[in-house]
Amino acid sequence: MTAVPSTPPSVAGHPGPIRLGPDAHAALRPADRATVTGGFWAERRRVNSEVSIPQGPDRLAAAGNLENLRRAADRESSGFRGGFPFQDSDVHKWLEAAAWQLGEPGPDPERHTALEEQVGEFIDLLARAQEDSGYLNSYYQVAKRDVPHFTELRWGHELYTAGHLIQAAVAHHRTTGRRELLDIAMWFADHLADNFGPEGSGKPVDSIDGHAEIQTALVELARETGESRYTALAGYFVDRHGGALPETKRTGLGRPGYFQDHTPVRDAPAVTGHAVRQLYLLTGAADVATETGEAELRAALERLWADMTARQTYVTGGIGAHHSDEGFGQPYELPNDRAYCETCAAIASVHFSWRMALLTGRAKYSDLIERTLYNGVLCGVSLSGDRYLYDNPLHVRDGHADQEGVGPRRVPWFDCACCPPNLMRLLASLPHYLAAASADGTAMHVHQYATGTLEAELAGGPVALRVETDYPWQGRIALTVEDTAAGPWTLALRIPHWSAGNWNVTVGGTPAPAGEWTLEDGWLRLTRDWAPGETVELDLDMAPRFTLADPRVDAARGCAAIERGPLVYCVESEDQPPLPAGSGLDDLVVDTSAGLTSGWRPELLGGVATVTATARVRPRPESGGDGDWWPYRPAAVGIPAPADEPVNLTAIPYYAWANRADGAMRVWLPADA
Amino acid sequence: MTAVPSTPPSVAGHPGPIRLGPDAHAALRPADRATVTGGFWAERRRVNSEVSIPQGPDRLAAAGNLENLRRAADRESSGFRGGFPFQDSDVHKWLEAAAWQLGEPGPDPERHTALEEQVGEFIDLLARAQEDSGYLNSYYQVAKRDVPHFTELRWGHELYTAGHLIQAAVAHHRTTGRRELLDIAMWFADHLADNFGPEGSGKPVDSIDGHAEIQTALVELARETGESRYTALAGYFVDRHGGALPETKRTGLGRPGYFQDHTPVRDAPAVTGHAVRQLYLLTGAADVATETGEAELRAALERLWADMTARQTYVTGGIGAHHSDEGFGQPYELPNDRAYCETCAAIASVHFSWRMALLTGRAKYSDLIERTLYNGVLCGVSLSGDRYLYDNPLHVRDGHADQEGVGPRRVPWFDCACCPPNLMRLLASLPHYLAAASADGTAMHVHQYATGTLEAELAGGPVALRVETDYPWQGRIALTVEDTAAGPWTLALRIPHWSAGNWNVTVGGTPAPAGEWTLEDGWLRLTRDWAPGETVELDLDMAPRFTLADPRVDAARGCAAIERGPLVYCVESEDQPPLPAGSGLDDLVVDTSAGLTSGWRPELLGGVATVTATARVRPRPESGGDGDWWPYRPAAVGIPAPADEPVNLTAIPYYAWANRADGAMRVWLPADA
Repeated sequence: MTAVPSTPPSVAGHPGPIRLGPDAHAALRPADRATVTGGFWAERRRVNSEVSIPQGPDRLAAAGNLENLRRAADRESSGFRGGFPFQDSDVHKWLEAAAWQLGEPGPDPERHTALEEQVGEFIDLLARAQEDSGYLNSYYQVAKRDVPHFTELRWGHELYTAGHLIQAAVAHHRTTGRRELLDIAMWFADHLADNFGPEGSGKPVDSIDGHAEIQTALVELARETGESRYTALAGYFVDRHGGALPETKRTGLGRPGYFQDHTPVRDAPAVTGHAVRQLYLLTGAADVATETGEAELRAALERLWADMTARQTYVTGGIGAHHSDEGFGQPYELPNDRAYCETCAAIASVHFSWRMALLTGRAKYSDLIERTLYNGVLCGVSLSGDRYLYDNPLHVRDGHADQEGVGPRRVPWFDCACCPPNLMRLLASLPHYLAAASADGTAMHVHQYATGTLEAELAGGPVALRVETDYPWQGRIALTVEDTAAGPWTLALRIPHWSAGNWNVTVGGTPAPAGEWTLEDGWLRLTRDWAPGETVELDLDMAPRFTLADPRVDAARGCAAIERGPLVYCVESEDQPPLPAGSGLDDLVVDTSAGLTSGWRPELLGGVATVTATARVRPRPESGGDGDWWPYRPAAVGIPAPADEPVNLTAIPYYAWANRADGAMRVWLPADA
Repeated sequence: MTAVPSTPPSVAGHPGPIRLGPDAHAALRPADRATVTGGFWAERRRVNSEVSIPQGPDRLAAAGNLENLRRAADRESSGFRGGFPFQDSDVHKWLEAAAWQLGEPGPDPERHTALEEQVGEFIDLLARAQEDSGYLNSYYQVAKRDVPHFTELRWGHELYTAGHLIQAAVAHHRTTGRRELLDIAMWFADHLADNFGPEGSGKPVDSIDGHAEIQTALVELARETGESRYTALAGYFVDRHGGALPETKRTGLGRPGYFQDHTPVRDAPAVTGHAVRQLYLLTGAADVATETGEAELRAALERLWADMTARQTYVTGGIGAHHSDEGFGQPYELPNDRAYCETCAAIASVHFSWRMALLTGRAKYSDLIERTLYNGVLCGVSLSGDRYLYDNPLHVRDGHADQEGVGPRRVPWFDCACCPPNLMRLLASLPHYLAAASADGTAMHVHQYATGTLEAELAGGPVALRVETDYPWQGRIALTVEDTAAGPWTLALRIPHWSAGNWNVTVGGTPAPAGEWTLEDGWLRLTRDWAPGETVELDLDMAPRFTLADPRVDAARGCAAIERGPLVYCVESEDQPPLPAGSGLDDLVVDTSAGLTSGWRPELLGGVATVTATARVRPRPESGGDGDWWPYRPAAVGIPAPADEPVNLTAIPYYAWANRADGAMRVWLPADA
């Protein structure tokens, strides 16, 4: 075991996931330090750190996860609680969230100390539960004590759970410099290396783990420890997909595509199967490609990301349309009412996209991250931070609350509680996704806009920026150079695709001279000798707008969505004026020619900009009576036209839906009759 | 046990399900005898009797169902095959299908004898497997020998499986007059009566069977045996739903609505939960209401049928939108790509509707039966009769065959093989649904049109009709009075709702005199003194037509369907002319103003009338390049308009889809840009 520095180089900052290896083949490298000190994300992250994360241990205790580990520590063989073999992973993901949070002490020392102590207790518990071999998984230690390890890989989640343990350990070491948890993780990782490949080791096991995760975890462990053999093992686990078993045996195990075991990653034409499994695998594969620089794998990842984004992604950034199998559907099969859009899948999309952003430097990856964070991820947690959604539909009908199980409700925890701690760890590490430096040290790239600070070491020296903005409510983003490298360097600002063609930038209050800026691939590049105190002001287009879908998205045909900046809007019944008796949200037809207006509503949902549209009520085809028993009509009879009288519709940001009484909700609005 | 006549009164005919009890409170009573001797259904039923039913025993042997019963007979406690506790029910349903078929000897005595022998062998096996108590269920006799009976009712399907045994026994006795199977069933039914209610017996069990079926079976057993206590027990099982357990316990068992245990049947506002469970329950409740005449239960059934039909039914008659839980969704949630539309649910809809048709005399119930038979049911079996669909989507995209598990394919059998024998028993008993006599003996009602004979005993004596038609390909239906009762009686012909306002009728070649006919509630009533040899000719409107959906059916917004007579059409990629490179079925926009034409294609799919429409190709929004990575566009940019050049689209009947190579298919066609 190679020595690991007891204090990582960037412990003083907020390195977050991911830290590239020294020889990584990436266009960009994450900023050394990023903070969010005010504005939209500061408030969401305050709730995460003051409500969600502190509640975690109680939830894990109530759900039995801690007792499972205690039983493993005491070498008991009964009493395992919870229905899933991956129960430990909820603990690990909470630990990872807490670890990122420990890197950001915050204003309340008591809270920080309490979190430190709680983390310490959890680590002690894990240390006691770990077997002499390094193995650690309470399900197989307690509930399945008689089953040999690594023989139920298809559904057993042993490597998946190990992966989350490793990620927690990396986060804990990266932010605190402490290695208690890292030692546990390395011990387990070495045990894995003893039991599995890589190629040529003579130790392949005749399956793949059914749920990817180990791949990205091992690469991060290699980055944290400098041990490149972990990257090699990660690559081995990537390569096993679609290759570990002969095709007949893969098929015989049922639905190989569900596990992404139908074809090797490098050959896959399209994203397939269980969405979270698919994206965790691609995330790990992107980590491997970044560290190895392999062109074929990179090309496959670019192709699969493009397939996912163009054909399988909701306007909210949500992915995974099917409730059955929590999976991808056919291309463009994106039903709004039955959108599964698991919160974890949106989070996984952010993980995958960020690695692709670093690998390629392309702005579109961060365009999708922005959209996904503000919409498809953030909808998963209540504004209060203590209730969650697992699936995130884009349409809930009037009266859904009357029927069992047909409308999602935010709940404090789930039997399968993957999403809540996943949200916690993403929000706790959010500043990590804000900025990066170009690999050649000539440019600082700002990917996401939030009030705070961004620091990176460029070729000429350290650079620090202060960002001030009311984004996403306002389009104005002010950046001040606080520290600057010697000589010219490039400040690259992402122009979001929704603002393309309609933005303005000034340097020191005046338009940047023609020779000092370029716009390419979504990046506004300002290159000059910067002086401390110099300011750049970017203005993006925050006018609310109607959006249409590709006609092949059948579920959005004849509809328009409302967007404003990076936010997707929705209409909830609660905000609407009284409609004619018997009418509801689903009877409204929005008039896209009538335009949209926006206003700030400080009292509403913690403060939101609402958008107002004009709509008309379409009378229902049946007016009662037995002639109306059948909901289909000859085209010659037609359907009723909307009434003349306009109705003002109020739309709210989608992330804020389902924070009040149950009611109807729509993202895609029937448009223009 | 009351004596049962060794030969039932109608053995010479084809009584089929259902035979009302002597005191039934129904507007109509099934015809005494009905045959299908030619035309559309004769061919489909020929395939059923010559291919599907004869293959059944081999399929059941291969799937292990027969071995399970053999092990039960030998009192073995291991080796149960198949993953479901209701494996026996596949045997019972096949037996029921075979029994109906035995009532219709057909042209091939050898085939008939072979079927008789096969049925006899199965009955012998069941007799050997039955325990001394009367209990018979190989899952609980073999796989779960240690579990006390009737203690796992929620998921154990013990009463469900018993119900199918009883239905098979009723069919066998009704068509053959033999009572070997009936004795087995009555023995088991009496065992059930010893273990369960009815009210006041002091024997309630603290749950409901999770899958309704026993209710309708027991009423039919009462009808066949004259034992009204079976009807009372059926009523008890209906009443237990939503009432057997306190609400908290019902909820604690999870998803009570899935089992229709959330509220008593009489109080339910809407169809809910697992579609087949819901409709089997309503079918049994309709049987109970018919026999008891209870107004409150009848009103609930009318309400629930109306809810199902107006808000939860596809244009094909298919029901049950959700893959998850195989259940109903929210009202108007009817996605075409993810339509579950289990074949069994469509069959259950026919069962329920037929009981409502008899109970009320209303034509709309048989309107839905017609639509469901020709579309939502018949699509479930291949034209060759040896391959089946379990779920029946209304839209399959181009390239679905490239992805695993995303497009249905017809297969010879299923692990959960409920649908194939269900299709067999429905097709084998199909003539039963053609006609009925009014309860007061004054009218003969023709519900469905097929070449064959219809016989009923009216008040004035027996009436017999011969029907000749090329329906559904031609709208002309010729009826000849072959035998007639004394004095005037009414011939009531259903005018299908799709032909309302466009039909013609003649008696003896000339329009019926004004005083001799009325049209009310979809029934054309011709009342006169009929003489043998007199003819009536009804002409229905077979012009192909475009159909629109209620605007609240989001999945059909901006689309039109093509229908012709009772047939719903679809467009399969295989029949279309070459489209511009890169375009597919989903890029076509149909022009509803251009009209439709129809033609007979004897060589296609066993002979079908195709319908030709005019469409245009919409260019795809992305033309390649990285600017096109995101499938949503500002409304200001818009989506491409269809090209000018028209394309001739060929539509085929939906029931005939998926009988050739894998390809794309649509029922609802994007319309008019």
